[in-house]
Amino acid sequence: MCRWMAWSGQPLLIEELLFKPAHGLVDQSLHSRMGVETTNGDGFGLGWYGGGDGPAVYHSVAPAWGDENLRGLAAHVEAPLFIAHIRATTGTAIQQTNCHPFRHGRWLMVHNGVIDGFHVMRRDLMLAVAPERFDEIRGSTDSEVLFHLALTFGLEDDPVAALERAIGFVEATAAEHGIVNPVQASIGVSDGESIWAVRYSSEGKSRTLFASAEADAVRRLHPENPRLERFRDEDRVIVSEPLSALPGMWQEVPESTALIVQDGPDEVVAFQPATAVSAA
Amino acid sequence: MCRWMAWSGQPLLIEELLFKPAHGLVDQSLHSRMGVETTNGDGFGLGWYGGGDGPAVYHSVAPAWGDENLRGLAAHVEAPLFIAHIRATTGTAIQQTNCHPFRHGRWLMVHNGVIDGFHVMRRDLMLAVAPERFDEIRGSTDSEVLFHLALTFGLEDDPVAALERAIGFVEATAAEHGIVNPVQASIGVSDGESIWAVRYSSEGKSRTLFASAEADAVRRLHPENPRLERFRDEDRVIVSEPLSALPGMWQEVPESTALIVQDGPDEVVAFQPATAVSAA
Amino acid sequence: MCRWMAWSGQPLLIEELLFKPAHGLVDQSLHSRMGVETTNGDGFGLGWYGGGDGPAVYHSVAPAWGDENLRGLAAHVEAPLFIAHIRATTGTAIQQTNCHPFRHGRWLMVHNGVIDGFHVMRRDLMLAVAPERFDEIRGSTDSEVLFHLALTFGLEDDPVAALERAIGFVEATAAEHGIVNPVQASIGVSDGESIWAVRYSSEGKSRTLFASAEADAVRRLHPENPRLERFRDEDRVIVSEPLSALPGMWQEVPESTALIVQDGPDEVVAFQPATAVSAA
Amino acid sequence: MCRWMAWSGQPLLIEELLFKPAHGLVDQSLHSRMGVETTNGDGFGLGWYGGGDGPAVYHSVAPAWGDENLRGLAAHVEAPLFIAHIRATTGTAIQQTNCHPFRHGRWLMVHNGVIDGFHVMRRDLMLAVAPERFDEIRGSTDSEVLFHLALTFGLEDDPVAALERAIGFVEATAAEHGIVNPVQASIGVSDGESIWAVRYSSEGKSRTLFASAEADAVRRLHPENPRLERFRDEDRVIVSEPLSALPGMWQEVPESTALIVQDGPDEVVAFQPATAVSAA
Repeated sequence: MCRWMAWSGQPLLIEELLFKPAHGLVDQSLHSRMGVETTNGDGFGLGWYGGGDGPAVYHSVAPAWGDENLRGLAAHVEAPLFIAHIRATTGTAIQQTNCHPFRHGRWLMVHNGVIDGFHVMRRDLMLAVAPERFDEIRGSTDSEVLFHLALTFGLEDDPVAALERAIGFVEATAAEHGIVNPVQASIGVSDGESIWAVRYSSEGKSRTLFASAEADAVRRLHPENPRLERFRDEDRVIVSEPLSALPGMWQEVPESTALIVQDGPDEVVAFQPATAVSAA
Repeated sequence: MCRWMAWSGQPLLIEELLFKPAHGLVDQSLHSRMGVETTNGDGFGLGWYGGGDGPAVYHSVAPAWGDENLRGLAAHVEAPLFIAHIRATTGTAIQQTNCHPFRHGRWLMVHNGVIDGFHVMRRDLMLAVAPERFDEIRGSTDSEVLFHLALTFGLEDDPVAALERAIGFVEATAAEHGIVNPVQASIGVSDGESIWAVRYSSEGKSRTLFASAEADAVRRLHPENPRLERFRDEDRVIVSEPLSALPGMWQEVPESTALIVQDGPDEVVAFQPATAVSAA
Repeated sequence: MCRWMAWSGQPLLIEELLFKPAHGLVDQSLHSRMGVETTNGDGFGLGWYGGGDGPAVYHSVAPAWGDENLRGLAAHVEAPLFIAHIRATTGTAIQQTNCHPFRHGRWLMVHNGVIDGFHVMRRDLMLAVAPERFDEIRGSTDSEVLFHLALTFGLEDDPVAALERAIGFVEATAAEHGIVNPVQASIGVSDGESIWAVRYSSEGKSRTLFASAEADAVRRLHPENPRLERFRDEDRVIVSEPLSALPGMWQEVPESTALIVQDGPDEVVAFQPATAVSAA
Repeated sequence: MCRWMAWSGQPLLIEELLFKPAHGLVDQSLHSRMGVETTNGDGFGLGWYGGGDGPAVYHSVAPAWGDENLRGLAAHVEAPLFIAHIRATTGTAIQQTNCHPFRHGRWLMVHNGVIDGFHVMRRDLMLAVAPERFDEIRGSTDSEVLFHLALTFGLEDDPVAALERAIGFVEATAAEHGIVNPVQASIGVSDGESIWAVRYSSEGKSRTLFASAEADAVRRLHPENPRLERFRDEDRVIVSEPLSALPGMWQEVPESTALIVQDGPDEVVAFQPATAVSAA
């Protein structure tokens, strides 16, 4: 059910994180250790902020491990903020419009997890999307509908609150259908400046999510590691599962929290679905 | 904006109609003469009735002219009834779930044309689809929504009446949005026994559609042609544009009519959208 | 490094073996138990003998587990002899021309394994292919070159002897380059009448290969199993790994042997690369 | 039989030339005016020099007009030198390894045209490629073999002389096989600093090739055009067919010449295949 990673910091060649670490995201497409499935081969996507307007997005239905174009892009594109996602479908079609990240204007979203009972709720959830946004839904995944629900509930103004309302709405809808524990999610959202990383599931057993520790702490722990020497204070990596076994390098994002990676100190805030929302 | 063809009659190797005629459907993918676009290279689809339950469907996002698998299938699959479609997108994504024919149970549908203003009406039209059928909509095309509207309005009981109601509903919805002449269509529908071929457009200038003439008339006209000699009385070809320039071979399906190819004498009936329908 | 299966017997819907068994080939594409890799997601191929001239071949670069077309084909195509292959590349490109089975006239071949040092020997091996056959090599795999070597050495006249000469030639070439144990192979070949299944590796530790036991023995062992009840005397399945854990159902093909499935009693013969061949 | 374009000059968003001009290369993929085929839908490729080592290459088997990834890349990647190619196959497979540009180290090559009789000569031509380079040939096109012949004959030291030797060798080989007028070519080569653009055919009727005029002449001709105002002295566009009908903008590259776009004044030199070469 997918894995993802995000980078924010100094401009970095994308391959530094996607291909070079022993257990980078491309390796996880074949050999995920902490995911529900070991194989995440149902396409992938990469979004980055750089030249041109808004984020660039590259989507492919091929498994990440074998895609020559991804290898080429990652070796030549440098960006200060990028998000990558590998997909293991929970039943919807393998097509580019179902690949993450989803994009709206400057915003990108990736999702690892599932909305249980989505096929039963799909109509209700799509109806709750703002009508003027309805036709933007191009694929058939639960994740894309969740993105448009969050946009409907104000993602561009307050990402955490909007995701809390969107997930709260899904849970309320599920309750009406008698579906228990509908939401399983780790979510990454960015506007090109900050990254919001949410870990939440209705049952409180969420998919794994980790962030790199503070740069100076990491460097102090491993003074002999030349790679970490280049790590700067504002650099941050968020990953579904650690890229390496380096002690002290990876901090688990706690259950039901949102990590906000931003200029200045990053923040961890509680994430609590809003239960009494209605889709106006 | 697409081209299609259908065969009903004696079991036939599919390549006999797709590849062998000088201007067969695969040639039309590169060199359509009567279509809005000369190139129909945005994927294709093939549906046939044969072994197994219900129709088989093969969809590809590759242009038909270069697809080795289509060439192989067509050279080895024989069927008494098949429908093929080549696509020129009017804007929606090039993906297998947007390829025709669309399937539901034993039913297949292909569409050449467009619903003008679809992006404005998409939400209204999808809401009119029977709720229990909503999640069957897997792609993003106007054609697939039209198919599910027709199913909602009784396609499996009375195909012509259901299509009249579906198109009538689209026209009524368009009127509410101030969209004129919304429907442009030649449509092929089959349940594996009969084929319903409809030619209709709101403005009365529909995409071209032709059917092969009665077999004995054709043979009498061209007694020297060995290919036609094998043509039997129940054999019928329906095409967006003639496969050959053989005089007397192709009869244009008139505007606003439905041709019904079936056991016994085929029929041509008037096609008139039902104007006062509501999506119950 | 790939998995494959073959069927010979009564006409059978392909899905009966590809999809329906708990550990059918499509399941093996995600969860191979006996292969070098658990994932065989670098494309697949299917060849069958039926309508039309010679075998039909369907190749795809998508993983078998997610290919809707394969699912559709397998549910509607019935054949008395078919071969399927799932690929895990050893480095060459993921493209249809690298998918098995390879075809020449009525002949098909699949290969599970590798020619070690192929990149060093590729030129020498391709030069040994009959010049008039050289341009038939369309992809870049070791397997396809091995197929054309075998054709050069008489595959169409005596498959086992030709494969012995082809593999002997590869081993002799490898020796010149200082490459040890170059050949690792389980190979399936068919002309539409018989199947030749070879298990051989230079080091004597070959990829796994199994054949279904005699039909009556199988039925006697499991009188309660309705599926086996339909199993007839001439039915035979060959698989890289057993489709099920049914005791007595699967017999390992021994090292360095060729199993010949044919009209009348099947045969097992020794397989010994011919060491003193030259590419005339 | 393909179309291509190249840019050298100030860093430019790739879409400025690929998508924005009315008759940019993507439009030519559907509506080529001067090509042998109006449709060039058998894949495409894009190579650019920028971040990372050597050129980046993006290859796709989808038609350029419908590829969302190409649209995204072109809108976000800026480069001082890039080459794009759209393909209309002359018979070889539609696969990424057959897409141009071909790459070797810092070098890229695109080819519009054909080697007539290639299938007869393929073995001879591949044997003339330096043995240590043989395994680099990954696809099945005449163009890729021509690239490796040119590399064998010294492309990295003297591109024009190497192409003269390579084409001379093809013509000599063709003569042995009784093939007349074998080479039809417009070729673009780059090392990231300069571009060599060759127009040559054995019969002296080569594919079209144009280069943009000197920047100041262009600006003086069209002082009112804001786009041209940004055109700088070192900016140069090379195209199979003009992107626009602007008078004075496009100069035809003459038959049997090579245009060298480089730092300082560009050059036009005669191109004459070397007739007495042997593949050492």
